[in-house]
Amino acid sequence: MSEIFKSGNLDAIDHIAISVKDIGKAVEWYREHFKFKVSYQDDTWAFLEFENIKLALVIPEQHPPHLAFVSEDAETYGELKKHRDGTRSLYVEDSSGNAVEIMAPYKVDPEGNAK
Amino acid sequence: MSEIFKSGNLDAIDHIAISVKDIGKAVEWYREHFKFKVSYQDDTWAFLEFENIKLALVIPEQHPPHLAFVSEDAETYGELKKHRDGTRSLYVEDSSGNAVEIMAPYKVDPEGNAK
Repeated sequence: MSEIFKSGNLDAIDHIAISVKDIGKAVEWYREHFKFKVSYQDDTWAFLEFENIKLALVIPEQHPPHLAFVSEDAETYGELKKHRDGTRSLYVEDSSGNAVEIMAPYKVDPEGNAK
Repeated sequence: MSEIFKSGNLDAIDHIAISVKDIGKAVEWYREHFKFKVSYQDDTWAFLEFENIKLALVIPEQHPPHLAFVSEDAETYGELKKHRDGTRSLYVEDSSGNAVEIMAPYKVDPEGNAK
């Protein structure tokens, strides 16, 4: 999570959030099958860092499943909300009603905070 | 799509497949908002290449939404099916019933075929 996302001609997908029934059991299942780092976990969601992208496991009643894209044009969508980790984003819906988070490009300092 | 996936200590997510209602309209919506390359498109699915990952847009009646991981241990899950693009994989379900494709590591030659 120390790279600068949005480096080339293409936009990047920052993270994916998928629905699971039980966060603890889901983290355990993924841990049995794949290699990743857990950067956050509580009873309502967990954040898993893979080689090229982050995967959020969410309880849908608490957090919506979504795709988060990094776009240089994020500011043009409206006022971005700043999150505790320093990233800035807003949510829209795609043509089928899927939740899409649009994030401003960021890089992460050694303490893990976006800037 | 010319990199070797699975390079470091962590596994990579090769692609995500999400459900949409109409492939053409969905590709158009994503094209209006983000920069990517379309590597395949028909009436039942499309494959969009982003900076760090590929996004498949699927009609769920035709193709299941899923996450596809690249794992060095893919062979241990059973017999892998070889696909037209040269990748080899099988499907499992996570602890919540989400479809998960497990792909053997691959790299892509200049013609776009996995080997």
